[in-house]
Amino acid sequence: MSVMQKKQNFTQINNMELSRKHFIRTAALAAASAVTLPLIGNAALQHPASSPHPSSDPKETPFPLGIAGYTFARFDLEHSIAMMNRIGVKNLSLKEFHLPLNSNDEKVKSVMGAFAAAGINIYAVGVIYMKTQQAVDEAFAYAKKVGVKLIVGVPNYDLIDYTEQKVKETDIRIAIHNHGPEDALYPGPGQVYERIKNRDPRMGLCLDIGHAVRAGTDLEKAIKEYSTRLYDLHIKDITIAAKDGKAIEIGRGVIDFKALVKALRKNQYSGMCSIEFEKDMTDPLPGIAESIGYFKGVMTNLS
Amino acid sequence: MSVMQKKQNFTQINNMELSRKHFIRTAALAAASAVTLPLIGNAALQHPASSPHPSSDPKETPFPLGIAGYTFARFDLEHSIAMMNRIGVKNLSLKEFHLPLNSNDEKVKSVMGAFAAAGINIYAVGVIYMKTQQAVDEAFAYAKKVGVKLIVGVPNYDLIDYTEQKVKETDIRIAIHNHGPEDALYPGPGQVYERIKNRDPRMGLCLDIGHAVRAGTDLEKAIKEYSTRLYDLHIKDITIAAKDGKAIEIGRGVIDFKALVKALRKNQYSGMCSIEFEKDMTDPLPGIAESIGYFKGVMTNLS
Repeated sequence: MSVMQKKQNFTQINNMELSRKHFIRTAALAAASAVTLPLIGNAALQHPASSPHPSSDPKETPFPLGIAGYTFARFDLEHSIAMMNRIGVKNLSLKEFHLPLNSNDEKVKSVMGAFAAAGINIYAVGVIYMKTQQAVDEAFAYAKKVGVKLIVGVPNYDLIDYTEQKVKETDIRIAIHNHGPEDALYPGPGQVYERIKNRDPRMGLCLDIGHAVRAGTDLEKAIKEYSTRLYDLHIKDITIAAKDGKAIEIGRGVIDFKALVKALRKNQYSGMCSIEFEKDMTDPLPGIAESIGYFKGVMTNLS
Repeated sequence: MSVMQKKQNFTQINNMELSRKHFIRTAALAAASAVTLPLIGNAALQHPASSPHPSSDPKETPFPLGIAGYTFARFDLEHSIAMMNRIGVKNLSLKEFHLPLNSNDEKVKSVMGAFAAAGINIYAVGVIYMKTQQAVDEAFAYAKKVGVKLIVGVPNYDLIDYTEQKVKETDIRIAIHNHGPEDALYPGPGQVYERIKNRDPRMGLCLDIGHAVRAGTDLEKAIKEYSTRLYDLHIKDITIAAKDGKAIEIGRGVIDFKALVKALRKNQYSGMCSIEFEKDMTDPLPGIAESIGYFKGVMTNLS
């Protein structure tokens, strides 16, 4: 079914349903006006994936949904795209295994063209670790090549000054990612915030909620306190709220997603809600699908 | 991880979290006391699957979740059980392709033993079509053999008197299933209710919400009006609220599940919420998982 057909069907439903009431969503008209991506590779590459919220989901959700690229660590481009199409999520944070950092223009064009042809919007690159000044340069050059304005990254402390300089030069934002108790640099979002709060406002956080809770973070407080610098989210669930917590399908673990989405709304979060699924990584599709479904279901609390 | 380990973990979490607040579910303690099924085949067969709400989900949901057996029409017992385990849903309405109606005791014991060993509760049989008196007899004999007290069935109009007689004889309930505009007997739940409302109270409805909406049913009104006779639900989503509506992942279609769960709660529904997924039937697991996830997510509206 084409996007246009979908629009027609939804419009038709709404006209039909105005005189009847049986649980038919009123969101359908909104969906009919949803932004759609250009589907032709070359055209898309002219303005590659720079829109902040270009979700082309059949129905709008209160927050745009994405996938954190690491979810597909064991899959090539083709299979990753197929999984995204299956779950109907159109926004991806690109990892280097799908497009190496040192790719030439031809490779960039080929990979970005494949995403564009599938209607997938690359909204960020990362997570990218930056242990040297050269790595910072590479990350920003990569973001520029790909055509995104957001890097999810992990610069060493002594590279934060240089990273800020690159942010100012390029107007590319950086969202620093927290990785739990094992992370010597940024176990929780507080360790990020302390290091960027007085810097260029284009420096912020990618809050990984699972790693944050494993590190003892109060998510509600963090979302409130860091809201002006909260640029990306890695959404996941964990088995226990402690260092040993393991990845699990969203909704089966200990994180209260109803409270999470309420806090995001309350603090006017305007970034992406990207699912990062790290269980069953050689066969992740059912778990990704369940997680996406659960998060979408919880978001009905807001509509 | 064993059930006991899960209990310990959840208890541990709760003890730990009482002094901290970061979005950890308070439902975890409730989950720690969730009913678990006997896992040894023979023991389970002594009291085969007669508990109305024996969900062994890691976390309790406001309504117990199940699967309508037709979902697995293209899969054998082993693969169906594997899919149920993967999605963590433990209640199934049994279809004849997993256990033929004319099965001997040995076959019944073998199949029911396999379900019990996997922790799966057969809470009903059906959908079973009954076009002759013999078919009614077979259906009730089958339910008795399997050890369930609920048949989801479709008796011809001229067999409803005889079906009522069997209900009285056996104390086995029947929930008559509606199948949409193409169904000459029961397109919507109204056509069921009219024929059972003055009969034995053990005669009721299995409301198939997708087929009902395709037939023009107002779900909220139906749930309210038929609540005293609502014994089972087939939960699904559809692309459009018309005869041509097709099956789609729950949350992607036109049914408002937030309104649905609120109506069920308001009218004190006490049966199973069984997902029936009829799209991608040769590769249904991602769609089932997304549907289950979405429905669980929506149910957080009630908690």
